[in-house]
Amino acid sequence: MLMHDENALLLRNEVPYRVRYADTDQMGYMYNGHYLRLFEIGRTELLRQAGVPYSQLEEQGLLLPVLEAHVRYRAPAFYDDVLTIVTTYQPHYGATLRLEYTICRSDAVLAEGYTIHSFVSKEHRRAVRPPEWFFERLSKSEP
Amino acid sequence: MLMHDENALLLRNEVPYRVRYADTDQMGYMYNGHYLRLFEIGRTELLRQAGVPYSQLEEQGLLLPVLEAHVRYRAPAFYDDVLTIVTTYQPHYGATLRLEYTICRSDAVLAEGYTIHSFVSKEHRRAVRPPEWFFERLSKSEP
Amino acid sequence: MLMHDENALLLRNEVPYRVRYADTDQMGYMYNGHYLRLFEIGRTELLRQAGVPYSQLEEQGLLLPVLEAHVRYRAPAFYDDVLTIVTTYQPHYGATLRLEYTICRSDAVLAEGYTIHSFVSKEHRRAVRPPEWFFERLSKSEP
Amino acid sequence: MLMHDENALLLRNEVPYRVRYADTDQMGYMYNGHYLRLFEIGRTELLRQAGVPYSQLEEQGLLLPVLEAHVRYRAPAFYDDVLTIVTTYQPHYGATLRLEYTICRSDAVLAEGYTIHSFVSKEHRRAVRPPEWFFERLSKSEP
Repeated sequence: MLMHDENALLLRNEVPYRVRYADTDQMGYMYNGHYLRLFEIGRTELLRQAGVPYSQLEEQGLLLPVLEAHVRYRAPAFYDDVLTIVTTYQPHYGATLRLEYTICRSDAVLAEGYTIHSFVSKEHRRAVRPPEWFFERLSKSEP
Repeated sequence: MLMHDENALLLRNEVPYRVRYADTDQMGYMYNGHYLRLFEIGRTELLRQAGVPYSQLEEQGLLLPVLEAHVRYRAPAFYDDVLTIVTTYQPHYGATLRLEYTICRSDAVLAEGYTIHSFVSKEHRRAVRPPEWFFERLSKSEP
Repeated sequence: MLMHDENALLLRNEVPYRVRYADTDQMGYMYNGHYLRLFEIGRTELLRQAGVPYSQLEEQGLLLPVLEAHVRYRAPAFYDDVLTIVTTYQPHYGATLRLEYTICRSDAVLAEGYTIHSFVSKEHRRAVRPPEWFFERLSKSEP
Repeated sequence: MLMHDENALLLRNEVPYRVRYADTDQMGYMYNGHYLRLFEIGRTELLRQAGVPYSQLEEQGLLLPVLEAHVRYRAPAFYDDVLTIVTTYQPHYGATLRLEYTICRSDAVLAEGYTIHSFVSKEHRRAVRPPEWFFERLSKSEP
């Protein structure tokens, strides 16, 4: 079973994020829980770039709830830092969507992680097979 | 028009809240935006005490979106503080709901404020007349 | 006492904000408490535009905690909406800073509000006189 | 090297958490990022139970930033649900602290995960050896 097509384009999105006061905690760092919000921003912009904006998916009755999330914190992010959220998708076949994230400040990697998503029918709230066009568009997208 | 019945019971709820790390900012204070979350907690517990839990209102097709919110910050709340959220409702007639909040630590008042809510149909997302039983229950509740 | 110099420049900043999933609640609206985060973003960008970035103020030992916040919600903001945060400062003399905010989507005003800030010494955590250069820069800034 | 003493007490804390409107997203679920806030609440109450409240650790110059966080989402949490945050610590020797979390509603497990923490000097912001008394207290605590 072919899980990874090594010749496939690696879909990749970069989006800037400025750390706000609301993001900081009294340690002076961006609070650990907020990284999952940054992952959401990266994911949303990658899907938009691929031509399948998440808002359209929901309108078509598809939800992508998170099954699993992982964050590895390497160095703190500080107030007013301008970070880059790098999101990548490596095309594969399967019933879930896995995205990988790197949070950078200039050349420094501050955090890395991934999320895994299932495909759920908005109406029935049950797992559904992901539509073929979904992965097709992600695979054909120009990075 | 009788706006305030001075003999009416003043419906009042107290609920404790412990400040979490996620609530703090790098000033070492609870972030100003989080007070509206505390107001929500106080409001929810006051409605539950009155016998009209907000979750039931939504099930019956009624939303109570916030029209207006005000916070007066008097002194900072710190990490791990145990605060008391005091919520009061003064019975009156009208098409909106106004609740008042005081955030205390022991005898010190850290913040005060209010929220004003409209009654909206969940289905049509339009303003509706508040059901009579809603204010009746709030007025008859034992504090 | 001259509170408002009507000939003064009205310092004004506009910054876009895209509503994220994390911002929504089960009503399908941006949660009411998050508007204060948007106000913070507007305030930060207005101060940066005026040449007094808040991060520099803190480095110079000055905090601007919020004394008072007010929000008037006119219409809901939805997931993936691109909003504009408009922040204005009307020069005046006094020991506090007042900023006004409008949250718009295209031509529609979704919310309005203000915040009032005191000037506090980071070291002693006491109210201090605002430095003269602070208001000078805000008044002289080109919008 | 003895990593796990199988006879050791398993330090375990349970703390209730009610899902608030602020926690929900437009899917009608508790937003995925908020689980890390619940993990923080569980961790804080476990440390308090062990006699080493986190607020005291910080006063003694010790920070416990998160190195790694993992969440496995099994079923959604809904508005007004009363959840139980179960936090466990299995005594071991090492330079990091690992805690495990289960988020339950009645008998259903909604999510599981862990966090790994380093010990950092508040003054120098460098990794330090964890004080011996820290793990001693965690190991000796009665659950």
